[in-house]
Amino acid sequence: MRLPTIGFNRRMYTAVDHQWMRQALAEANKSLYLSNPNPRVGCVIVKDALVIGCGHTQKVGGPHAEVCALVDARTQGFDVAGSTIYVTLEPCNHTGRTPPCVDALIAAQPAKVVVAMSDPNPLVAGKGLERLKAAGIEVRCGLMEKDARLLNQGFISRMTRGLPWVRMKIAASLDGKTALPNGHSQWITGALARADGHHWRAQACAIVTGVGTVKEDNPSLNVREVATERQPWKIIIDSKLETPLDAKLFQDTNLSKVILVCAELNTPEKRATAAIFEARGIEVIAMPNPQGKVDLPSLFAYLAQKRELNEIHVEAGFKLNGSLIREGCVDELLLYYAPFFMGEGIGMANISLPSLEQRQNWQIIDQQLFGADLRIRLLQSSK
Amino acid sequence: MRLPTIGFNRRMYTAVDHQWMRQALAEANKSLYLSNPNPRVGCVIVKDALVIGCGHTQKVGGPHAEVCALVDARTQGFDVAGSTIYVTLEPCNHTGRTPPCVDALIAAQPAKVVVAMSDPNPLVAGKGLERLKAAGIEVRCGLMEKDARLLNQGFISRMTRGLPWVRMKIAASLDGKTALPNGHSQWITGALARADGHHWRAQACAIVTGVGTVKEDNPSLNVREVATERQPWKIIIDSKLETPLDAKLFQDTNLSKVILVCAELNTPEKRATAAIFEARGIEVIAMPNPQGKVDLPSLFAYLAQKRELNEIHVEAGFKLNGSLIREGCVDELLLYYAPFFMGEGIGMANISLPSLEQRQNWQIIDQQLFGADLRIRLLQSSK
Repeated sequence: MRLPTIGFNRRMYTAVDHQWMRQALAEANKSLYLSNPNPRVGCVIVKDALVIGCGHTQKVGGPHAEVCALVDARTQGFDVAGSTIYVTLEPCNHTGRTPPCVDALIAAQPAKVVVAMSDPNPLVAGKGLERLKAAGIEVRCGLMEKDARLLNQGFISRMTRGLPWVRMKIAASLDGKTALPNGHSQWITGALARADGHHWRAQACAIVTGVGTVKEDNPSLNVREVATERQPWKIIIDSKLETPLDAKLFQDTNLSKVILVCAELNTPEKRATAAIFEARGIEVIAMPNPQGKVDLPSLFAYLAQKRELNEIHVEAGFKLNGSLIREGCVDELLLYYAPFFMGEGIGMANISLPSLEQRQNWQIIDQQLFGADLRIRLLQSSK
Repeated sequence: MRLPTIGFNRRMYTAVDHQWMRQALAEANKSLYLSNPNPRVGCVIVKDALVIGCGHTQKVGGPHAEVCALVDARTQGFDVAGSTIYVTLEPCNHTGRTPPCVDALIAAQPAKVVVAMSDPNPLVAGKGLERLKAAGIEVRCGLMEKDARLLNQGFISRMTRGLPWVRMKIAASLDGKTALPNGHSQWITGALARADGHHWRAQACAIVTGVGTVKEDNPSLNVREVATERQPWKIIIDSKLETPLDAKLFQDTNLSKVILVCAELNTPEKRATAAIFEARGIEVIAMPNPQGKVDLPSLFAYLAQKRELNEIHVEAGFKLNGSLIREGCVDELLLYYAPFFMGEGIGMANISLPSLEQRQNWQIIDQQLFGADLRIRLLQSSK
């Protein structure tokens, strides 16, 4: 019997192929809070219409999804030879922190490997698949690619643009106020919206904020509302190194790296201040622009290219939000609206529009209630 | 064969009953822009499992839904005797602008009348149904009552609270700005959102705005983007009678009544100004509060109780929006958000919150995209 095929251009895949790849994507989703800076990858090994092994990429330095799935199959006493392996990303063909996954796959002698998306790094894309083909394994690539890409927006962004995927979270009232004139902002949104915010924190490589927010709100900036084995880094934009040493976000430097980004370290005083932070395990870097402030676009390029950060979660205030939006650093907005009017208060982002024609448009991709609050997600869209 | 019944407490109705009542509700929906101040009512007459007549309430002074459906059946040569009649509101038992519908129904000798909701006026509720029962007709009431009530929120509000249902529309940027600091606001939202706004205008009995909006934006405040046989009234809150005589909203006074509401007419000068408006067919009324401003709650009570206005559509600015919200006059918010940040600009409503605990919460009941813009509907909810 021929199985039904789904859609045009996907006729090489059966409905059953989709089912197993969906399961591989569900596996990959288990790496969401875990595998950074490695991509989130899932793998399912199928033989005689049964799953004989599955796995997802572990914490950095740990095994990738394919190796986890192979181990899982063997642990249960299954022989992978002749199986079909579904994996959400092209298996790696190079030695990084772990040996190449293609070698492990070839040694296991599957009949077929089905891949959701090729390696986003254009320099290595397709090479893993070619190695598998050369070993006599049937290879297919592109099944449920869109879903696989969504799971790794940050990794893809770093590999293809040399930039992290930057997501800015703002919680506001219906009339766009984030705090009362006296600065009070606890709490604008309810428990469900705040927990959802922690879900997005947890999947980021780093949380970025500004010194203003640290001084005014003194946030911990860690992940609390969802279970995670890994805390994101904390990065504070602090041109003049004014962050208080007793700030709450320094309290768990054993769990999460903290970086202070200043504009310049060009005086002995500034270097002395930096040394105090460094002595407490807090990294200080200087990233000046010609105006003597922090060069935000360069900072993000640096964080992706030199520090392997895929996804950045911004939780900042009026000023830094405005600078980041104006300088084109933000890829995605995560806006939570609580259903009340605040009237007077502090706005969402420091922007000044000379005319409505000069607006920078975003594209709403999702709207959803969390308790009484509304979450809207938007992507940067060209005018 | 017994037909399947739906749900607990509705076991007296079959799935087929629901189907015909759904069709009666669809008929009622045709009165949406038309029947004010009468309720939107639809009627379907069914005999031998076929619709033999249907109708909806016409423009004020014209026939009600039941009479339209009876005429429809007879025009097609059908005998209504022995039929089942589905009607979305209890038939009237009193002579208003037209004779009582119960008389027409009794004369037609249907076997059964199924009603979605009883008359919301507690003084007459049930009396129409009793007349039908006394005439030997089987009567059921309550099928799809929730849907029927939604269609007539304004009429129900006027009958039960002596107040209109007040819906406030605001279009804003993501950060809650309705206009640039220079007042420019054309256009914040796109064509689809604006057309939806006209849909809500069209079903209102009157559009309320403030003299500030008239002076700054000079709106026409009529229904243009959807087809309608009836224009809502225009009501301008104008404490000191400062509306310019050449304002655009006066241009179609032949189609739509205009009322200026001032605070006081206690001087010869004010009465002279009022006389100029009156000479042009514009009604002027005074509705003062102790502070010498327009008494907004009293105005709305007056509009419902003395002028038969069911639904009010507010399109005003920062100040009047704030007053109406603060004074508890608003039942529903219709907010359109365009996906961009304006930064500096004019806010949605003039409110000042001493603390977050004193917020007035709303309940989001619907969120939907119109082109690139998001519409949110909210109901007033107790704290």
